[in-house]
Amino acid sequence: MKRPGLKDVAELAGVSIATVSYVINNTPSQSLSAETIKRVNDAIRELGYIPNLAARTLVNNKSNLLGVLIPQTESGKELMFSNPFYGDFMSAAEYTARKSGYHIMISGAESGRTYAEVARTRGLDGVIVVGMNDDEECRQLKNLNIPVVLVDSYCEASGFHRVSVDDLQGGYMATKYLLEKGIRKIAHVTGHVNDSGVNFLRYKGYEKALQEYGMSAAKSLLLSGEVSFEYGCEMGEYLAGLDERPEGVFVCADILALGLCIGLREKGVSVPKDISVIGFDDSLLSKACDPPLTTIHQDVAAKGAEAVKLLINENHTLQNRVFPLTLVERGSVR
Amino acid sequence: MKRPGLKDVAELAGVSIATVSYVINNTPSQSLSAETIKRVNDAIRELGYIPNLAARTLVNNKSNLLGVLIPQTESGKELMFSNPFYGDFMSAAEYTARKSGYHIMISGAESGRTYAEVARTRGLDGVIVVGMNDDEECRQLKNLNIPVVLVDSYCEASGFHRVSVDDLQGGYMATKYLLEKGIRKIAHVTGHVNDSGVNFLRYKGYEKALQEYGMSAAKSLLLSGEVSFEYGCEMGEYLAGLDERPEGVFVCADILALGLCIGLREKGVSVPKDISVIGFDDSLLSKACDPPLTTIHQDVAAKGAEAVKLLINENHTLQNRVFPLTLVERGSVR
Repeated sequence: MKRPGLKDVAELAGVSIATVSYVINNTPSQSLSAETIKRVNDAIRELGYIPNLAARTLVNNKSNLLGVLIPQTESGKELMFSNPFYGDFMSAAEYTARKSGYHIMISGAESGRTYAEVARTRGLDGVIVVGMNDDEECRQLKNLNIPVVLVDSYCEASGFHRVSVDDLQGGYMATKYLLEKGIRKIAHVTGHVNDSGVNFLRYKGYEKALQEYGMSAAKSLLLSGEVSFEYGCEMGEYLAGLDERPEGVFVCADILALGLCIGLREKGVSVPKDISVIGFDDSLLSKACDPPLTTIHQDVAAKGAEAVKLLINENHTLQNRVFPLTLVERGSVR
Repeated sequence: MKRPGLKDVAELAGVSIATVSYVINNTPSQSLSAETIKRVNDAIRELGYIPNLAARTLVNNKSNLLGVLIPQTESGKELMFSNPFYGDFMSAAEYTARKSGYHIMISGAESGRTYAEVARTRGLDGVIVVGMNDDEECRQLKNLNIPVVLVDSYCEASGFHRVSVDDLQGGYMATKYLLEKGIRKIAHVTGHVNDSGVNFLRYKGYEKALQEYGMSAAKSLLLSGEVSFEYGCEMGEYLAGLDERPEGVFVCADILALGLCIGLREKGVSVPKDISVIGFDDSLLSKACDPPLTTIHQDVAAKGAEAVKLLINENHTLQNRVFPLTLVERGSVR
């Protein structure tokens, strides 16, 4: 099942691989005899060889291939595509790329390989990195000398386009909304909280709102694990079992909030009567939830489209696009 | 922001592009002088040139790039990633590919271009096509002479690996389950039903079960549109408004069933008290639904992993993998 390559054409025509390449690409600087050109073209026809983009990539140094590098929950694990955030992002990114003649390659980093190596060996024309906070990775990406868009990524290095939302403000908006409803004891369910990153900033927003109301963020009310449906369920059941339950929960992602609501429901705790829940993302899941989830809306598709546009427009002025957040009131807060 | 290419190295070293390629790939058939090799290597170092996979693709005719070609709802539209089916499939496919040193390129077909053209121009080592029933597209893919895995695809051409479930059996199981529960008037909500394909076969299974009970499939009970959350909501509201509502609904996908349940709920119709609903897929959404959805389970991740394995194991014997279906009882059928 091997398709004929440049090498096979060269062998059949009795010329060098370079000569075949010159004929295919019609390289003006090379003067080839009419007889050689005919021999190569005959061999191409005979073998059914089709020049591919790899050849053009080499000659023009342009692959028309963009990479979307997506975090894994852990190294060597699957991508986080079960979170609809990534599906919405990818649909829009792929569509925007396709309309301009680009394709999208998706990848987590292989164990022991960095994102930069993946981008380099693939000759990617540009890279979109989602949710990366590793300064060393950023430094390596910068050295690639190709356009890079950091999406929802917090690393200190400069020299990248950025697409994000104001995560601190989002956490603040969500928590303040609960406080304004008279809810005081507020838990925060989130993913891993490091020194920076989306989860950290949403947590800081939560903390800021509490402080405005003269409260501080209690460690016992910070439930930090994995951004997954399963962890949400687990935390719902955990909160349901507490003697002194919080009155409200700010959850950093809808997929987690959905699990939380189901975990609470399974233990007989009613949302919003017994406990109020506010999510983040406004994905399809927020409508699926019963009651429908009050949540912080972000336009994930617009972020995906914008990230691709920044790469293919070859805008050399670095852009920092911060997309707006709005609060969508539904039925999960009393 | 242009990175140095083969051409730049050749120019600086004062040799041909082919010579640079011979040095990089250490081509044994080419005898090059030590001086030439040094000149090329010096130029590579000076420019910071990094050989990329495009070069290896040309020489070895192997890209280590696999394509996943995914249907669009309509030509020129976004991919159907909002359906968690695709997220689950892609996560497993990407992970399986990555472990073996392959990357995944995703694409819908560009307007006016076929899947085969995309695969050919990209020099893909193999192609996974999800949900394709176009015989002409299949014929073109076959001519590529690279391994192709058809997933959930029904076209008549032979010569492909296939990964699927028994869709007719699935439709039959779901409908028979409702019938065995004493439910008689059963609607079917599905995507576009053509002469073949997943939706057609699930419909045939629905019809077969009805016939076993001496009934036929009424046209008025076949609601066929788009496999989307929104169409599900619409159909839920539509069914809720009927004077003579069906007692049960077999829905061809969980994302559609979830919308249906929400549409029914919004119009005050209770599942399963007033109407029973059974879905298909057993995605995350079936657990999100209230009540949790009784559904036909398929292992979407296993299908994604298997499709990639069939491509990279270079198994020349064509495989036809039919994954099992099981019925998962939850709370949406009375």
